[in-house]
Amino acid sequence: MQQAVKPVIAGSFSALAWQDNTLRLLDQRLLPAREVYVECTDAAQVATAIVDMQVRGAPAIGIAGAYGIALQARVIATSMDWAASLAESFELLEAARPTAINLSWALKMMRDRLARLPSDADVPARLLEAARSIHQSDHEANLAMGRLGMQLIRNHHKTPQNLLTHCNTGALATGGYGTALGVVRAAHEAGLVDTLFIDETRPWLQGSRLTAWEMERAGINACVHVDAAAGHLMKTREITWVIVGADRIAANGDVINKIGTYALSILAMHHGLRFMVVAPSSSIDMALESGDDVEVEERCAAELFTLGNQSIDAGIPAFNPVFDVTPADLIDVIVTEKGIVERPDTKKLADLMSHRHLH
Amino acid sequence: MQQAVKPVIAGSFSALAWQDNTLRLLDQRLLPAREVYVECTDAAQVATAIVDMQVRGAPAIGIAGAYGIALQARVIATSMDWAASLAESFELLEAARPTAINLSWALKMMRDRLARLPSDADVPARLLEAARSIHQSDHEANLAMGRLGMQLIRNHHKTPQNLLTHCNTGALATGGYGTALGVVRAAHEAGLVDTLFIDETRPWLQGSRLTAWEMERAGINACVHVDAAAGHLMKTREITWVIVGADRIAANGDVINKIGTYALSILAMHHGLRFMVVAPSSSIDMALESGDDVEVEERCAAELFTLGNQSIDAGIPAFNPVFDVTPADLIDVIVTEKGIVERPDTKKLADLMSHRHLH
Repeated sequence: MQQAVKPVIAGSFSALAWQDNTLRLLDQRLLPAREVYVECTDAAQVATAIVDMQVRGAPAIGIAGAYGIALQARVIATSMDWAASLAESFELLEAARPTAINLSWALKMMRDRLARLPSDADVPARLLEAARSIHQSDHEANLAMGRLGMQLIRNHHKTPQNLLTHCNTGALATGGYGTALGVVRAAHEAGLVDTLFIDETRPWLQGSRLTAWEMERAGINACVHVDAAAGHLMKTREITWVIVGADRIAANGDVINKIGTYALSILAMHHGLRFMVVAPSSSIDMALESGDDVEVEERCAAELFTLGNQSIDAGIPAFNPVFDVTPADLIDVIVTEKGIVERPDTKKLADLMSHRHLH
Repeated sequence: MQQAVKPVIAGSFSALAWQDNTLRLLDQRLLPAREVYVECTDAAQVATAIVDMQVRGAPAIGIAGAYGIALQARVIATSMDWAASLAESFELLEAARPTAINLSWALKMMRDRLARLPSDADVPARLLEAARSIHQSDHEANLAMGRLGMQLIRNHHKTPQNLLTHCNTGALATGGYGTALGVVRAAHEAGLVDTLFIDETRPWLQGSRLTAWEMERAGINACVHVDAAAGHLMKTREITWVIVGADRIAANGDVINKIGTYALSILAMHHGLRFMVVAPSSSIDMALESGDDVEVEERCAAELFTLGNQSIDAGIPAFNPVFDVTPADLIDVIVTEKGIVERPDTKKLADLMSHRHLH
């Protein structure tokens, strides 16, 4: 019961592992300069790690939240009313990243599991099992998506390809392996990757800091460029696929993802490249009719005007949107663990989601 | 004769001024944090300032080079063979930025002036006049381009518009006022600017460091964003014009400019925005048939992997091209001091360049 879920990836790190009754998180703010792990022993510590961005990536945040509940149940140890005893921790975790759809999804899974437990159950043990199951399912979903995405590439190409990705969608952002980066890993294993071109992804630089770090660990040939060079690269470097993740997918197939994804989809269309979105079905929000209904979160100007510990603030405001919306008609294919959807639209996504899939 | 050329712009700075027999340069590497001026008294100091990027922007580099020759003539004071005495300085300056077309153009102007001087001329005084004339002409060309570009905007719009620009093409990069940013200044003076949206322009951040600083000084309403947000902005902020400069323009109208310009031109076309390129006719290289004939300069990976004094090198290489090529068919209009060229092509540019214009 106390063994960590081991992601089967090249390179020896776990962004997130259960070990010796603690949740061990790789502090992503310090990468690639330093590889430091933080240990959480209760729900409040996990909530803080989420707020402080020590753990990031929608699926990883969901898994961390589930483990947070399991940790808190161990702290409480015994209770006559577990739902009441854990209520505050659920709220605390839910508030840590209110827009992360996977976090509320994972916490709902934990609540449902708690509600279904018999009165004589070993609640801390059962909740830990539930959290590990969420972790394991996410990991398996990534492996399934990796395979499906790789097969799509192989259907079109028999030789190593140049791919382009944005942000970090790898083992760091998920329960292991990765979504878009999982497809890159699977394609690499199948001999289909020449070079992965990585957008540095301002302002947080998830590309140059995290994706580059993962690719170095995995021994996958990769190269970082400034976001503004993506168009020039598509024209000059024979890229065939742009592969990105999704923070949320609307019922009509519009994709909400890291700022810059929308521009990439236009550039890909202009150059005749294929545009693949890879995300677990838990990212598909059937209650969201269209991407245009989303209010895009904005962050502070300081993220643009601070370089290391140096200020470059000229006294002009910044517009710092976190996400943008890529319309479904610019997307060639959405890959989920339930299957792929080519040329996505409302009907095709509804069909996909109507296939039951047990987590 | 010793008075500085005064650029007629709001805000009190000169990137480049002749003052008390020295060339005074605003050190652009330190902006916006610190406004420090360096003083050059000979050609070697000017060459170093160019190499070290204390002065940048193709037109500004050309003007600095011309003043460098004038400074060296003052140091030499008297000579029986001025061409021989100054030969080393010409070579030193020419080598300081070999790809900057305006630098070799300005040094050729100085050489021609020297060759035409009568034997009894006060050479240091005449060369200073020549340098000041190059400076003054560039400044006047900027004012002319500003007017022409502003009129283009006014032909289409009667109310304040949202504009988008890339890199720095302002008073800092030129003899004063600016090229693309000169059009923004003129449009602002004509009441045609709501907000100037500024690409931060990685990796050097000329947008967030320099253009933002100039707009703050000029009191023009502006806002900085990460380069990857340009597409999202075009979709959501009713931008009507993208206005950029050019490092070189090929005979067929292809534009070589800061990396990211090409992607902007595609995004502008997709959103139905107008795309304006503003550059002096000295940037038009009639010997370059097409932009595809240019070898794009690449710089070192460290520019991407250093934030302030902090390293974020994950051990993966970087591809760091300085420029890209925007094909003529994605450009609505090229504005020069000689006139405008709508829907540029080889014939229209040849017609423009055949009108004689005295610098």
